[in-house]
Amino acid sequence: MKYADSGVNIDAATRALGRAKSAIRSTWDERVKSDTGAFGGLYQAAPGEPLMVASVDGVGTKVMVAVQAGRFDTVGQDLVNHCVDDILVQGAEPLFFLDYFATGTLNEDVLPAVLEGFATACRENGCALLAGETAEMPGVYAPGEFDLAGTIVGRVREEDLIDGSRIAAGDRIWGLPSTGLHTNGYSLARKVLLETAGFALDDVPEELGVSVADALLAVHRSYLPHLRTIWDAHGRAAVRGLAHITGGGFYDNVPRVMPQGLRAVIDTTAWNTPPLFRLIGDRGGVDPAEMYRVFNMGIGLCVIASPEVDLGALPDLEARIVGEVTSGDGGVDVRLGS
Amino acid sequence: MKYADSGVNIDAATRALGRAKSAIRSTWDERVKSDTGAFGGLYQAAPGEPLMVASVDGVGTKVMVAVQAGRFDTVGQDLVNHCVDDILVQGAEPLFFLDYFATGTLNEDVLPAVLEGFATACRENGCALLAGETAEMPGVYAPGEFDLAGTIVGRVREEDLIDGSRIAAGDRIWGLPSTGLHTNGYSLARKVLLETAGFALDDVPEELGVSVADALLAVHRSYLPHLRTIWDAHGRAAVRGLAHITGGGFYDNVPRVMPQGLRAVIDTTAWNTPPLFRLIGDRGGVDPAEMYRVFNMGIGLCVIASPEVDLGALPDLEARIVGEVTSGDGGVDVRLGS
Repeated sequence: MKYADSGVNIDAATRALGRAKSAIRSTWDERVKSDTGAFGGLYQAAPGEPLMVASVDGVGTKVMVAVQAGRFDTVGQDLVNHCVDDILVQGAEPLFFLDYFATGTLNEDVLPAVLEGFATACRENGCALLAGETAEMPGVYAPGEFDLAGTIVGRVREEDLIDGSRIAAGDRIWGLPSTGLHTNGYSLARKVLLETAGFALDDVPEELGVSVADALLAVHRSYLPHLRTIWDAHGRAAVRGLAHITGGGFYDNVPRVMPQGLRAVIDTTAWNTPPLFRLIGDRGGVDPAEMYRVFNMGIGLCVIASPEVDLGALPDLEARIVGEVTSGDGGVDVRLGS
Repeated sequence: MKYADSGVNIDAATRALGRAKSAIRSTWDERVKSDTGAFGGLYQAAPGEPLMVASVDGVGTKVMVAVQAGRFDTVGQDLVNHCVDDILVQGAEPLFFLDYFATGTLNEDVLPAVLEGFATACRENGCALLAGETAEMPGVYAPGEFDLAGTIVGRVREEDLIDGSRIAAGDRIWGLPSTGLHTNGYSLARKVLLETAGFALDDVPEELGVSVADALLAVHRSYLPHLRTIWDAHGRAAVRGLAHITGGGFYDNVPRVMPQGLRAVIDTTAWNTPPLFRLIGDRGGVDPAEMYRVFNMGIGLCVIASPEVDLGALPDLEARIVGEVTSGDGGVDVRLGS
């Protein structure tokens, strides 16, 4: 099975976005410091000021799992943490978050639970839930479903910006564990587990040891505390590049920070693939390369640092070396093992 | 007919939000300078810095009119201009905008047209389309439908902040014309015009003189050029309060800027209600008070200024006096006429 079989066509989205790229760029002036494809947009209102870093995202069809499980307090946390990570990879700390909640017919119990989730994660990340919008749109949403979008704004001093430009051949790529699928690949995961394999959400497959609902709804991890630990121990400059492993997996996200003339090599045998990913791959007959393109496979964040920085020694980080930087023609090799 | 009859229950949303208010406030510290209910959230990252003003919104079921009419280049403009107006009322000029586009199955022609709309309005407002997210979520959206959310970030110097605190008894309330429904009340408008009255989108009702599609898809006006004209002519301090007449109409939006001890009196006979609103009211048998609660009724922005400021003399503004400020117990009187 492939991601496209679950109804999500990444190539079509990429083509459609490509057609609009020049229109998007036509709105930019010298204050925009990022290009399309950056994790977060960079904006410097005036020279010398810190850079504002902003990102917008959703949680995909993880919302459908929440609806099916009747558990509404986690998807808001997922979205905040996802957004925090998307600007963290440029070195930014979050300032504030805005939420959008839309549904066909408002359920008075669902909305407060979702908002509590936003608030919980905002508190944990030291980020203000500054404003939000609730929309009731009969006819647009399928019955009982809702969608979320979130926008985060943070900032980073110019000298602390992480853009991958200091990455050098020989640098190590460290992986920090994810808690699960985070917020990507849910259409494929739902199709494989709930349709092909026929699991119910409260089933506890032997391979997982927890219910399918618990595994699928595990909250997207914020890596802000982890980065603070690293920065405190080794200084800001020790981190040369960060890649948030989201949609597109290692294949799409690691190259986003690699400079010209260098290549990342990821050795997937360096860590144990968590049971949830193995279960999806096995039951869905999903090709390994496709798995690493859709899912984070157990590594939610890649940290690129010079060889003398030992992240493995830092407590609670659970960092392990998952690859290295070599000279090459850009991009990434994902070595899938035997 | 009432708004609730179209499936939109504002009271339920208000109750649900009320339940989450303390959770939202628990994420705030001294850097948050606004309360819930402000048009835009105010955030001051450090004392003395300009205030960041941020707002998130959608265009409601105006997206369904766009889908039905097969016209996709305007809703993006609506959303940008709506967001611009929502932070303009606090005196802020826009810096950047982020968009979220979500649908069940991506149509490769729809997305670029929507993005072109965002870009067009961003250019017109001098605002960068900094980043965006496209989500394909089979099962969440009804077939053929899509939704949009947009977040804008602008800023304003502390001394230029417009928060209504300088409003005084005797001040005049000026109205600036809207282009149509802007982005509010579409569920009711669609129900009345397309169901009760039985119009097709390409019908040209005698009362309108244009097609129903043209009337319903008229682009939400950005009042940024109008405010720049006023500020250039009379200085920043001349504008004491601004109310963007969006969801909740005059009843909900004018009180958002009125200080304690003062009351706004709106005289609805001071302007001619545009034909589109009269058509909806007549064909739907909608109570006048309900009309003024759901729709802008032809006035998209209220500008509150001292009596010596004559906005009527400014070219291209089409400003007219629609009310005044009196002493009273807060809130607004909307005088509906005979």
